[in-house]
Amino acid sequence: MNGTRLHGPVRIVGAGLLGASAGLALSQRGIDVAIHDISPAAVALAIDYGAGRRATDADRPTLVIVAVPPDQTAHVIAAELSAYPEALVTDVASVKALPLAELEATGADTSRYLGSHPLAGRERGGVVSARADLFLGRPWVITSRPGTTAAQVGVIEDLVLDLGAVPVHLSVEEHDRAVALVSHAPQVIATVLAAELVTGSERALSLSGQGLRDTTRIAASEPELWTQILAANSAEVSAVLHGVRDRLDEVIGALDDPQASGARRRIAESLSAGNAGVARIPGKHGQDRKFSQLVVMVDDTPGELARLLTEIGEIGVNLEDVRLEHSPGAQIGLAEISVLPEVEQKLLEELEARNWRIAGAWT
Amino acid sequence: MNGTRLHGPVRIVGAGLLGASAGLALSQRGIDVAIHDISPAAVALAIDYGAGRRATDADRPTLVIVAVPPDQTAHVIAAELSAYPEALVTDVASVKALPLAELEATGADTSRYLGSHPLAGRERGGVVSARADLFLGRPWVITSRPGTTAAQVGVIEDLVLDLGAVPVHLSVEEHDRAVALVSHAPQVIATVLAAELVTGSERALSLSGQGLRDTTRIAASEPELWTQILAANSAEVSAVLHGVRDRLDEVIGALDDPQASGARRRIAESLSAGNAGVARIPGKHGQDRKFSQLVVMVDDTPGELARLLTEIGEIGVNLEDVRLEHSPGAQIGLAEISVLPEVEQKLLEELEARNWRIAGAWT
Repeated sequence: MNGTRLHGPVRIVGAGLLGASAGLALSQRGIDVAIHDISPAAVALAIDYGAGRRATDADRPTLVIVAVPPDQTAHVIAAELSAYPEALVTDVASVKALPLAELEATGADTSRYLGSHPLAGRERGGVVSARADLFLGRPWVITSRPGTTAAQVGVIEDLVLDLGAVPVHLSVEEHDRAVALVSHAPQVIATVLAAELVTGSERALSLSGQGLRDTTRIAASEPELWTQILAANSAEVSAVLHGVRDRLDEVIGALDDPQASGARRRIAESLSAGNAGVARIPGKHGQDRKFSQLVVMVDDTPGELARLLTEIGEIGVNLEDVRLEHSPGAQIGLAEISVLPEVEQKLLEELEARNWRIAGAWT
Repeated sequence: MNGTRLHGPVRIVGAGLLGASAGLALSQRGIDVAIHDISPAAVALAIDYGAGRRATDADRPTLVIVAVPPDQTAHVIAAELSAYPEALVTDVASVKALPLAELEATGADTSRYLGSHPLAGRERGGVVSARADLFLGRPWVITSRPGTTAAQVGVIEDLVLDLGAVPVHLSVEEHDRAVALVSHAPQVIATVLAAELVTGSERALSLSGQGLRDTTRIAASEPELWTQILAANSAEVSAVLHGVRDRLDEVIGALDDPQASGARRRIAESLSAGNAGVARIPGKHGQDRKFSQLVVMVDDTPGELARLLTEIGEIGVNLEDVRLEHSPGAQIGLAEISVLPEVEQKLLEELEARNWRIAGAWT
């Protein structure tokens, strides 16, 4: 039916960003989704968005997806395991060890629970930010444990693949350590840097550039949700933050006495280590594939960027990424176009032949 | 002549990103620019790029722009003041107090020196990244001192305005404090976070998302240049970093004992302070003007994004920003379109009427 791997019915508990997005995607693929939330208003809104139908007493789900805040995850999993004794229960919480320990403490039959975690999300939460393609191409971690059956893993893999995500198999501990490094600690670091901005004058802040904007962007995230995530993964996050603080202390020590022997070398080595760290982050397309960039000047009038992209389409080149940069008050914008390196030269020449002004190009 | 405010000839010392970009822009506007560098190869390349002509012994510049690395700035300013006794000399170094102190120590006639600093740059330096519009709409700080004349300020303002930048008047000390907060400390923070990524496994790094990419992007910057900048502004940068470290220690302390009374409140308050800090960063257009966003699904084929933007042009709406997000391996992209809030609803309706799939919308 409809080419899905998963067979419903599926029950989703929690009509927030992740639950509603999963419900939207599964419903669109023809799977029967019952969506539930402790907030009747959230359920009604999610149903309006097409994320599923109202749950009934007659429901016999084969799979229950618990998509509630981390603090409530273990409790809700336990209730679902008990209410649906035939169902496999998974969750999407961004921390895996603590909810499992809490679940075990309830005495629930954890043999039907298999945790998972989609690495997807936005700064904005809630049903209104939900979208069917939220998980597309994103990693979705499945945390098998001793006793997890191949059939159970298969069900969650089917879910992940039906949602267009990429299954990644990690142990509970590996997962929590990994997300502490690539997600939770960066959240704290962006936060403490952004918080320091309250000490600056308005004139100082007026000098802000794109670097500061990017570095602090995620500090706009929801405090309540993140307090739960950080507290639930506190030991792993703290371990990473201790490492970051040691590196910071090294730089501060050098800056506090920049004329001392070796001080500049220590600063330079820190900066080089930062270069090396950034280079380890895989590119947008999952691999280290690098794109070439062209910067093209476009007038700040409706249709100008469209005209540029139409001509790029006519030239037959596929855009990998495009970013428009406006300068404050300027009448001109810069379109930064990313393309595969092998087509860059052709594109450059053809755009110049069409009288586009190229402000920069590099590979 | 050519509508410029500035009258040449202008001499630029240093054919790197900033010097070559200024030379390119001034030359294009018809001003006579002589460009010099200790590297003959850099001069030749800059001239090929159109950044000016070769300097001659007969040159009598009215303005000298020193655009060399911070460590060499004072020394080069002193030499230029002595070589061109009629000229006003400025520099573009990102630190202002230390070069001035070093200059005064040389015994040079500092009455003809007026420092300045354009807040412009990229991760990539050098002539090859130069572009005439580098300064367009960017703040350009002018650091007058007691004794600076209105005529001198006028010359630098003419330069700034001819380059399309926005003059900002700060004292030397205000400048160094401001850039420590909005530029130098963020560089260190992004660096020490990125450096910690070397501790992660490849599988951990495979979970990286856009948040980590943005938070660490500037950590890819050039170590040699940044060592000089940080060392030159060490006291101000250290002061900001101490503040950030105190905030980090507060979070680490709470995470090390998350069950302690008040621990969660301290985490939540830190996250809220981060929210408040981000909110202080002015928007792209220099003000706190907020835009509305629409996320539209586009197929990953040449011309699809162009078709979308063409239709937005037909609808008569001006894009403030556009960003294309590809998911790894996905056949679909998401175009995040920023527009003025008052036209968002109209655009949403018209795009839906044209069968575009809207994946999200918010103000």
